Amino acid sequence: MKYSFAPLTKNYESSAVRDILAVIQKGNVISFAGGLPAEDIFPIEAVKSAYEKVFASGNGSLQYGATEGFKPLRDAIQAKMEQKGIYTTADKILVTTGSQQTIDLFSRVMLAPGDVVLTEDPTYLAALQVFRSYGAKVVAVKGDENGMDPADLEAKMLEYCPKFVYVIPTFSNPDGKSWNDERRQQLFELAFKHDCLILEDDPYGDIQYHQDEVYRPIASFDREQTHVMYTSTFSKSVVPALRTGWVTGPEEVLQLMIQAKQMNDLHSSSIDQQALYYLLRDFDLNNHINIIRSVYYERMTIMQDYLNQVEPGLFKWREPKGGMFIWVEGPEHIDTGALLGEAVNKGVAFVPGAQFYVNEPKRNTFRLNFSHSTPEKIKLGMDRLMEVLASVPVV
Amino acid sequence: MKYSFAPLTKNYESSAVRDILAVIQKGNVISFAGGLPAEDIFPIEAVKSAYEKVFASGNGSLQYGATEGFKPLRDAIQAKMEQKGIYTTADKILVTTGSQQTIDLFSRVMLAPGDVVLTEDPTYLAALQVFRSYGAKVVAVKGDENGMDPADLEAKMLEYCPKFVYVIPTFSNPDGKSWNDERRQQLFELAFKHDCLILEDDPYGDIQYHQDEVYRPIASFDREQTHVMYTSTFSKSVVPALRTGWVTGPEEVLQLMIQAKQMNDLHSSSIDQQALYYLLRDFDLNNHINIIRSVYYERMTIMQDYLNQVEPGLFKWREPKGGMFIWVEGPEHIDTGALLGEAVNKGVAFVPGAQFYVNEPKRNTFRLNFSHSTPEKIKLGMDRLMEVLASVPVV
Repeated sequence: MKYSFAPLTKNYESSAVRDILAVIQKGNVISFAGGLPAEDIFPIEAVKSAYEKVFASGNGSLQYGATEGFKPLRDAIQAKMEQKGIYTTADKILVTTGSQQTIDLFSRVMLAPGDVVLTEDPTYLAALQVFRSYGAKVVAVKGDENGMDPADLEAKMLEYCPKFVYVIPTFSNPDGKSWNDERRQQLFELAFKHDCLILEDDPYGDIQYHQDEVYRPIASFDREQTHVMYTSTFSKSVVPALRTGWVTGPEEVLQLMIQAKQMNDLHSSSIDQQALYYLLRDFDLNNHINIIRSVYYERMTIMQDYLNQVEPGLFKWREPKGGMFIWVEGPEHIDTGALLGEAVNKGVAFVPGAQFYVNEPKRNTFRLNFSHSTPEKIKLGMDRLMEVLASVPVV
Repeated sequence: MKYSFAPLTKNYESSAVRDILAVIQKGNVISFAGGLPAEDIFPIEAVKSAYEKVFASGNGSLQYGATEGFKPLRDAIQAKMEQKGIYTTADKILVTTGSQQTIDLFSRVMLAPGDVVLTEDPTYLAALQVFRSYGAKVVAVKGDENGMDPADLEAKMLEYCPKFVYVIPTFSNPDGKSWNDERRQQLFELAFKHDCLILEDDPYGDIQYHQDEVYRPIASFDREQTHVMYTSTFSKSVVPALRTGWVTGPEEVLQLMIQAKQMNDLHSSSIDQQALYYLLRDFDLNNHINIIRSVYYERMTIMQDYLNQVEPGLFKWREPKGGMFIWVEGPEHIDTGALLGEAVNKGVAFVPGAQFYVNEPKRNTFRLNFSHSTPEKIKLGMDRLMEVLASVPVV
């Protein structure tokens, strides 16, 4: 039978990251490719204990729940938001199946074919896929290590009337970059001036290495909650398998997203949501986040020490101030996509950078994840990677 | 700020069931409104033990998982499908966040504005909402207590070239109806003849009261898996809070649905999926389903005994052969929407039937759920409902 699919499915893209992961899972390859948290430090005892409390609370815990999410969890998220300078209320918080679902539901209520979304370049691949799956056109705004260029941003707001601006301002995926405070404020002011929404994706904000630095969420400028949808997740600070994230922002938008979520899946697993509530109540999550920070910082440093051994100037990167990735730019004449085959043959993997780009891809870039591998594996993998990088001709 | 939403959001409908549930949760109302399973017989000890096994299996159980779902669970579902006469393979099974997500993902890859979906009338409200949210036009096919009328079905297939036919052939929501075998076969043959897909929604199929009766899934006719998407869920047979369902069907459609799911939420909670796998492995689910069957049958009988006391002929219903609902039709001059206010004042609630209709609603119908309330509560609630029904004038 010949199937007649919705025309928008023509915009679906296979995820190259997913394809790479499928290949490397087969061999004895050390992977710096996926964006996985360190499972050796998962707080499994605390998670286990939290689930025990759910079952101890009785049969009612296993019944259908509210689309918006488990109310005590939303209260706990509200308190967490306040610590970040985002003042909201529990009824303006929607619990989602990870921030991926936030991106999807927000896109669903906002985007029609032909609409424009402004993004950074490079940016999170799976967000680009979602925007395009709704027929939106993604337009990249120029930027540098401090964030989007305000002049180009304003010019593109005027030219394209975008439905929203999508940003990961803190320890971004893929390039580990963090915006400075001025650029955050400028984005907010321009969005306010031109009545444009911002989708602030903040999965990594908690994983900050240097305690003296301050990264204010863009949503913290939006005191009236009129212009910024802020989303984050417990996938990186607790465990990914929970699939629990949240979103807060303008009430009118949230109400439509709740309707969309109801149609999408009624509600996210309420066993997981209740467990997370008990975990936040009884477990010192801030202390655990401090452990994550120091473990990831150590792993990042080990990886970086290797990169420092490469021919000076040949490969460039910026030391990340948090998050899970080092973004490396090689000499212009190389294609890291071609290099990957060689790397996998040697037993190590990374993600070629090209696919994260909206505009002309920089084929000489690649992304390294340091959070998932233990120090021993990082050393072994980097030994292998060094051989690959050493084979790159200087000219 | 004035928000500019996607035009399709104009098709979003608030769920009247949800609105009713919100009202009655406030008072001391016995609710026959929601479609909730009996929580007093939830197998909480088995569920608890299954989660313990997840955590005992180590930290890897808390990492990101595959979009398709946890492979051992898909294997277990494959075996369960075989028992129902549906021959598939684990790689053609996608685990979803309940069958609601199946309905949504399938609609997402199939429907564009203006497309037609054929349905029964009345049918599952939240499916209608999904279809319309993608801009589809829902067209009802005539039918009777045995299923869709084949002549009208074929005429409408020819007239509308529908994208698919949506049916709940076994113990339907809202009207508790079951198709006979002939009508199932006729639907399949017409779909095959006119190259039309079928979405078979089977959340209640396990809850069958009379063991001598046979209800073959329509998907069991589709040996090559070319025309029927079959979806079911563990919400009714295990517990709803797990939010775990699945779908199997034509591979080409499933592949797009997997891409859509990846964009939608990456994957459903893998803690829950793994727990479900251990539960299916170590718990006698078939025995538990037999308990559900006998408990629900008893509750249905109690409720029906009350209905039998009403003025003969005034209210009509068919004894359901399974599932969770009795569908009642009153005298033509009444509006059960108006009656609901009176009922809530007396401390009992039902769902007026009008909203489940695609065409002209029969305002004299209502849906009673008997699974959620204990026998004592059913008696108390039906005493109250009897007063309301007794107040209805004969002419």
